[in-house]
Amino acid sequence: QGILERLDAGEIVIGDGGFVFALEKRGYVTAGPWTPEATVEHPEAVRQLHREFLRAGSNVLQTFTFYASEDKLENRGNYVAEKISGQKVNEAACDIAKEVANEGDALVAGGVSQTPSYLSCKDEAAVKAVFRKQLDVFMKKNVDFLIAEYFEHVEEAVWAVDVLKESGKPVAATMCIGPEGDMHGVPPGQCAVQLVKAGASIVGVNCHFDPNTCLETVKLMKEGLQAAKLKAHLMSQPLAFHTPDCGKQGFIDLPEFPFGLEPRIVTRWDIQKYARKAYDLGIRYIGGCCGFEPYHVRAIAEELAPERGFLPEASDKHGSWGDSLSMHTKPWVRARARKEYWENLKPASGRPYCPSMSKPDGWGVTKGARELMQQKEATSEQQLKELFQKQK
Amino acid sequence: QGILERLDAGEIVIGDGGFVFALEKRGYVTAGPWTPEATVEHPEAVRQLHREFLRAGSNVLQTFTFYASEDKLENRGNYVAEKISGQKVNEAACDIAKEVANEGDALVAGGVSQTPSYLSCKDEAAVKAVFRKQLDVFMKKNVDFLIAEYFEHVEEAVWAVDVLKESGKPVAATMCIGPEGDMHGVPPGQCAVQLVKAGASIVGVNCHFDPNTCLETVKLMKEGLQAAKLKAHLMSQPLAFHTPDCGKQGFIDLPEFPFGLEPRIVTRWDIQKYARKAYDLGIRYIGGCCGFEPYHVRAIAEELAPERGFLPEASDKHGSWGDSLSMHTKPWVRARARKEYWENLKPASGRPYCPSMSKPDGWGVTKGARELMQQKEATSEQQLKELFQKQK
Amino acid sequence: QGILERLDAGEIVIGDGGFVFALEKRGYVTAGPWTPEATVEHPEAVRQLHREFLRAGSNVLQTFTFYASEDKLENRGNYVAEKISGQKVNEAACDIAKEVANEGDALVAGGVSQTPSYLSCKDEAAVKAVFRKQLDVFMKKNVDFLIAEYFEHVEEAVWAVDVLKESGKPVAATMCIGPEGDMHGVPPGQCAVQLVKAGASIVGVNCHFDPNTCLETVKLMKEGLQAAKLKAHLMSQPLAFHTPDCGKQGFIDLPEFPFGLEPRIVTRWDIQKYARKAYDLGIRYIGGCCGFEPYHVRAIAEELAPERGFLPEASDKHGSWGDSLSMHTKPWVRARARKEYWENLKPASGRPYCPSMSKPDGWGVTKGARELMQQKEATSEQQLKELFQKQK
Amino acid sequence: QGILERLDAGEIVIGDGGFVFALEKRGYVTAGPWTPEATVEHPEAVRQLHREFLRAGSNVLQTFTFYASEDKLENRGNYVAEKISGQKVNEAACDIAKEVANEGDALVAGGVSQTPSYLSCKDEAAVKAVFRKQLDVFMKKNVDFLIAEYFEHVEEAVWAVDVLKESGKPVAATMCIGPEGDMHGVPPGQCAVQLVKAGASIVGVNCHFDPNTCLETVKLMKEGLQAAKLKAHLMSQPLAFHTPDCGKQGFIDLPEFPFGLEPRIVTRWDIQKYARKAYDLGIRYIGGCCGFEPYHVRAIAEELAPERGFLPEASDKHGSWGDSLSMHTKPWVRARARKEYWENLKPASGRPYCPSMSKPDGWGVTKGARELMQQKEATSEQQLKELFQKQK
Repeated sequence: QGILERLDAGEIVIGDGGFVFALEKRGYVTAGPWTPEATVEHPEAVRQLHREFLRAGSNVLQTFTFYASEDKLENRGNYVAEKISGQKVNEAACDIAKEVANEGDALVAGGVSQTPSYLSCKDEAAVKAVFRKQLDVFMKKNVDFLIAEYFEHVEEAVWAVDVLKESGKPVAATMCIGPEGDMHGVPPGQCAVQLVKAGASIVGVNCHFDPNTCLETVKLMKEGLQAAKLKAHLMSQPLAFHTPDCGKQGFIDLPEFPFGLEPRIVTRWDIQKYARKAYDLGIRYIGGCCGFEPYHVRAIAEELAPERGFLPEASDKHGSWGDSLSMHTKPWVRARARKEYWENLKPASGRPYCPSMSKPDGWGVTKGARELMQQKEATSEQQLKELFQKQK
Repeated sequence: QGILERLDAGEIVIGDGGFVFALEKRGYVTAGPWTPEATVEHPEAVRQLHREFLRAGSNVLQTFTFYASEDKLENRGNYVAEKISGQKVNEAACDIAKEVANEGDALVAGGVSQTPSYLSCKDEAAVKAVFRKQLDVFMKKNVDFLIAEYFEHVEEAVWAVDVLKESGKPVAATMCIGPEGDMHGVPPGQCAVQLVKAGASIVGVNCHFDPNTCLETVKLMKEGLQAAKLKAHLMSQPLAFHTPDCGKQGFIDLPEFPFGLEPRIVTRWDIQKYARKAYDLGIRYIGGCCGFEPYHVRAIAEELAPERGFLPEASDKHGSWGDSLSMHTKPWVRARARKEYWENLKPASGRPYCPSMSKPDGWGVTKGARELMQQKEATSEQQLKELFQKQK
Repeated sequence: QGILERLDAGEIVIGDGGFVFALEKRGYVTAGPWTPEATVEHPEAVRQLHREFLRAGSNVLQTFTFYASEDKLENRGNYVAEKISGQKVNEAACDIAKEVANEGDALVAGGVSQTPSYLSCKDEAAVKAVFRKQLDVFMKKNVDFLIAEYFEHVEEAVWAVDVLKESGKPVAATMCIGPEGDMHGVPPGQCAVQLVKAGASIVGVNCHFDPNTCLETVKLMKEGLQAAKLKAHLMSQPLAFHTPDCGKQGFIDLPEFPFGLEPRIVTRWDIQKYARKAYDLGIRYIGGCCGFEPYHVRAIAEELAPERGFLPEASDKHGSWGDSLSMHTKPWVRARARKEYWENLKPASGRPYCPSMSKPDGWGVTKGARELMQQKEATSEQQLKELFQKQK
Repeated sequence: QGILERLDAGEIVIGDGGFVFALEKRGYVTAGPWTPEATVEHPEAVRQLHREFLRAGSNVLQTFTFYASEDKLENRGNYVAEKISGQKVNEAACDIAKEVANEGDALVAGGVSQTPSYLSCKDEAAVKAVFRKQLDVFMKKNVDFLIAEYFEHVEEAVWAVDVLKESGKPVAATMCIGPEGDMHGVPPGQCAVQLVKAGASIVGVNCHFDPNTCLETVKLMKEGLQAAKLKAHLMSQPLAFHTPDCGKQGFIDLPEFPFGLEPRIVTRWDIQKYARKAYDLGIRYIGGCCGFEPYHVRAIAEELAPERGFLPEASDKHGSWGDSLSMHTKPWVRARARKEYWENLKPASGRPYCPSMSKPDGWGVTKGARELMQQKEATSEQQLKELFQKQK
C-alpha cells in the first residue's frame, strides 16, 4: 500500500531519523558540508543505519540524498577524496534504501532539499533544473513517493513541489521553519496553503527546532489550511535536541551547533511525549530529523503501539517504560522499572559550570549580516566575508 | 606487533568504545541484562560498530563478550527469544572482531567481566571455572591478548587474572572503581598492586565514572605501584558521561541511569581534554566505555595525532577543532571553526527546568540495602527483595 | 520644585524601593496580608528604611500606605495584635515620610493601590469611596503628589486616578501588568491611554515582573501614547527579582513566591543595566518595587550619575563598579575592582540541585480557578475555596 | 544569667546575624575594607539592625566591632570622610549594643577579629597589644562576655583568647575555617583543642562557608575535643550563602564575592534545616554571619521553638512554615501554606544563562600568589602586587 492509501485509511506512519548527524558520529559524514557521498564510499554504513530505523519501526526509508543536489555536492570542499558525481550518489542512495526496505514492510521516499542555487539567486528555471536532475534518478529507481524537505523559503519549496509533481507520485513537503515562519516572513499557515495548492498531499515541518516548537508550527499550518478550507495530511520530523532558546533560524545559530549539542539530546521519554502530542494534534506522519537515533524512532512506535496494535522488532530488546530493569540486582535500580519514574524525571546535566540556556549567535555583532542574509541578494560569499570582517 | 611490544616501545594504544550502550540505542541490546547475544542474532550490527571504532582509530577491538559468562547469560530473562549457548555467543564475538581487525591494523582482545557467581558467593574454584569457559573460546579463536574488565571487587579480578594468565597471553585488568576503591574498601593503589602481582601487565579502570574521576583513580593506582616498586602499563576506559555527582558505586546509582543520561553525554572536546590529561599522566592505553561512540574515539586519536604522527581514517570526515565549518554560509557559524571556540564553550542543556546535579540513589531509604549489598552475603535476591519491600 | 517641574525640566527622578518585602525580612510586615500597620506599631523601623532610600538617592519617598485601604486592613487576619484604624496607619505613614523627606531634598508621594472592594465587585461609587478616604489623609497631611499604583485592572486604576485628581495635585499611575496587558485583556498601550485621559501626568508599571519585562511593558505604553498623540512622563518600578519564567499574572504565581525567591534577587549590576536601559527608553521616573533594597536604588543613582552630575550620599560607602576592592589583600579579589568584571559576571546559584526556571502555578490543575478569578464574579472567597477543594 | 549559666543549663542560645553585609546593603559600610565606623557616623542604623535581630530572637548582641582594631581602621582608605579613632568606634559600638540589649533579654558580647598586624608578621606581643586596646574598651563598658571570631590562623586566635581571658569574663572563640583546617594546615579538631586549652569555654566556626560546611567543621572540632577528653560548648555562625563550590579559603575566592552573591542567598527554610541539624549535632550557640538577615535569625528561633517553648517577637509577623498565606486570594498561593511545600521546594534562580557552580579564583593563574600568601612572609602588599602583575 502506498503512503496516501495508508494515511487516508487513518494509519499512523512512522518516519525515520537523522542520517547526517548519526553518520557524522559514526565517522562517515562531514559536519559543515553535510553531504551524503557515504552512499558511494561506505554503503555498508548507510545500509546498517537504514536497517536500524526499519527495526525501530520506521514505515518510510528516506533515500540518503540530503544536500545531494549537483550544485551542493560541488560545494563540499576537500572532505571528499575524489570527485563523485551527484548521479552516482543519488543512485546508490536509492539502491540501498530499496534493498533494506525489502527486508521489511517499508516504503522508500526520494528526497530533495534546499539548494545553493536558490540562495545565490538563480532563477526559477535554474533551480528547478537542479531538482529535476535528482527526480530523474528517483524515477529511474522507481521510489514509492517523494519528499521536498528542509526548505527555509516557501518560494523554493513550492518550486520543488512543482517539479516533483511532474512525476505523478505522491509528494510530501516539509519546511525547516518555526512559528515565526519562513525567512521572508511568510507565516506557517500561509506556507502550508501554498504548498498544498502546489500539489503537496502531506505538509509539515522538519529539522531546525525541538519537538515542542515543531508541533507549535504544524499547529499553525493546520489552522492555516482549515481557514483556507484545504485538506492535507500533517507531518512532523523535528530535531532530537532541546532548543527552547533558539531564534528564528533555529539551532544552527545556537553556540553549541554542531559540536556541543550533547547536553541538549532528548531522551526516549521526551520522544514518547512528543509522539503522543503529535498524535493528539492530528499528525499522522510522525518521524524525526537531526539527532534522532534508532531508539528515538522506537520510542514513537512504542508510545503509539496501543493505537497501532503492534510493537516494532527492536522492542524485543526494550522493555516498555524501563520494564527491563525489573530484574536488576540493585533494588533502587529495580525501582526505576515504571512509567511514573521516567515520566517525571528531570534529568541532570552533570555540568554544574554550564548554563541551561544560550543566546543564539547572529544577533548582536552580526545582526547586519543576518539581516542581509535574509534578503537573497546578500548571500554572495564575498559580501558576507567582507561584512563579517568589518564586524569583528 | 603485540600489545606489550607496542606499549613497551612507548606507543600510544587507543582502545575502543562502549558496545552495550551503543547497541542498545541501535536496537540490539537490552538495557538491564546488557548481554551480548547480538553476536549471534545480528552479527552485521556488531561488525559495523567494530568497523566504526576501527576507522575512528581504535588499535584494539575487544570481543563483544561483556557479561557473556554462562551464568550471566542464563540470568538474562525474556529479552532473548530462544536459548543461545554462551559458547556460541563468545565464538561469534571472536569471529566478528577478528574479521574486522583484519580490515586494518588492530589487535583483538578477549574480555571477561564480573560474574553473578561471585556476587552470589560461589567459591574461588566455581568462579574460576566460569572464566575458564570463556578463556577456552578465546584460546581456540586465538585472540591477541586478554582483558579482565569491569570488576567491582579486586578479589574476583585477581581470580580472573589468575585464570587468564594460564593462557600465556598478555593480560590487562581494569576495575570499575573510583578513588574510594573497591566495594570491600580496598583502595585503588592496593588493587593495582594485587593485580600486577597476579600477573597483569596492564592495569587501570573502566566504566562507572566520568573521565576526570577515572583519571584520578588511575593516578592513585600509579602511586600505589610506585610505592610498591612495581611496574605496569596504565589503562583508562571511562564513561562518556559527566558524573561529578555520583557516589562510590558510580553512575548506576544516579537517578538518570540508564534511560535519562543524555544531558550528561560528553562532547568530542571533552574527550580531547581527557586524552591529553591521560597522556600527561603517563597512561598509554587510552580508550572508553559506556557512552563512547566512534566520534569520541576519533577525538582521542585527533588529540594525540601530534605524538602519533597520523590521523585515523574517520578524520577524513572531520576537520580538526571544527575546521570543517570554515566554509559555512553563515559568518557566525564560520566563526566557530577554531580551537579557542570549542575549548572554551560551556554548552547549555536547553533544559531550564532541570537541575545540573542529582543525588545518587541507594543512599537514604535504601541505605541498609546498600550496606548489605556491599557485604557478599547480602546479595541473595530474596534477602534484597524483602529488605527493599520493608523500606518502601 | 514639584514632581512635574522636575520631569518637565528633563531631570531624572529616582523612586524608592520595596517596603513590604524589606520590612518583612526585618520582621515588621506579614507576608500574605502585606499590610503596613508598622507605621503605627514600629515607626522607627519604617523611618529607618525611608532614610536608607533617601541616602541611596531616592528623590521621592512614598508613604508606606500600600494595601492601607480600610477594606484591606480589615481583611488582614490575626497578624495584628489589636485593631488599628486605617486613618491612623495612613496618618502615621505621612508623618514618617515627611519627617525623613525633610532630612534631604525628597518629595513625598501619597499612594493608593488596588482594593478588595473592586475584586469583590463593589460598584464604582463604593470603590471610589475607599480611595477618597485615603486621599483625605493625604490632603490633610499635604503630600507633594499622588500615586495610584499596583493595579491589575485598568478600570479600577482609572477610578483611582479620577479620585486622586480631585485633589488638584499631580497624579502618577502605574499598573502591575506585563506585556500581555491587564487582567481583562486590555493591552498596555490602551491602559496608558485611558490613564492619561483620566488625568495621570505620569504613567508606567510597577511590581509583578522583572526589570526587563517591565521595560518591555512601558515601551508598549509609550507606543500606545504616541499612536494616540498623547503626552505623559514615563515611570518604571519593577521587582528586584529575575522572573523570565512568569506567566501573565507575574511573580505571585511562581512556586517560589514569596518565601523562596532568594536565588532570583538581582545584583546591583543588573540594576545598573536596567537604569541605563530605562533611561535610553525615555523613562525619567526610575525606581523599584518588591525586592529593591537601598543598594539597588543606589545602583540607579550611580549608573545615572554622569547624566545627573552627582552621586548620592550612600555612595560615600561604595566604590563605583567594585572600586572599593582595589585595596583587598588578595590579588585575585583586587582584580575584581573593575567594570568589565562585574558587567560580564554570570553569577552562580550555588544550588546544583535546583533548576534555573520554574513553571508558574495557577495553570494546570487550577486552570479553572484562574479563569474564574479573571472574571470578577468568581472572587468570592467561598466560591474559590469550593473550587479549589474540588480540584485537589 | 550569663552566657555560661545558660549553656550549662542546657539552654539554646541564639546568636545574631551579619552586620557588615546587611549594613553594606543599607548604605553604611564599605565592601572591601568592611570597617564599622558606622557606630559613630550613623548610630541609628546600627541600633535599628540590633533591634531587628533582638526582635528576631537573638539572645546575644555582638558589639559592631568587626575589623575595629586600630591597625585595621587605619588601613581602610578613603571611604571614611574624617579620621575616627578606634576607641570612639569601639565605645560607640558598646553603647549601642547595650542600649538595645536592655530593650529585651539579651547579653552583650564584645568581639575581636583577625588583625593586619598578624598577617604582616608582627610578633606575639605586638598583636596582643592590638587586642588589648579593644579589650580595654569592653571592660570599661562592662560587656557580658567576649568573642574572638573570624580567625584564619589558630595561632592568632589563641593569642586573642589569651588576651581576652585576662578579663576574667567568659570567652568564646570561632574560626573562619572549613573542614580542611586553618591556613597553616592545622585541622579543625586540633584548632578546637588549642582554643579550649587557651581558655575558651565555647568554640566553633563563623563566616567563610555555608551552613552545611560549617556544621561539618564543627563536627570535626567536636571529635577533636572528645579525643582529647576536653569539654566546651559548641558554636556555629555560618554564612547565609550556598557555597558548595568554594575552596579552602571560603567564599572570598568565589568569583561572585562580594557583589554578585545574590543567587546564593539561603532561604528561611534552608536556615530551619540548618538550625535543626546544628541542634542535633549538639551545638547550643546557634547564629549566623555574613548574609544573615533578621528573618534568617527568626528562622532559627522558629525551628527550635518546640525545644525552647516560645517564639520570638518578630514571629508575630510570620506564620510558621508559610501559614500566613492561608488567606491569600489565589487558591494556588493558599496551597503553599504548609511545611511540606516549602521543605521540598527546589527554588529556581530565574537565571537560565548562569551556571549553578563557579570555580574559585586564586587557583590557577594566581596559584603562586595563593601559596605565598599562605606563608606569612609573603603578605607584604608590594610583593603581592609584583607577583600579580607578573601573572596577569
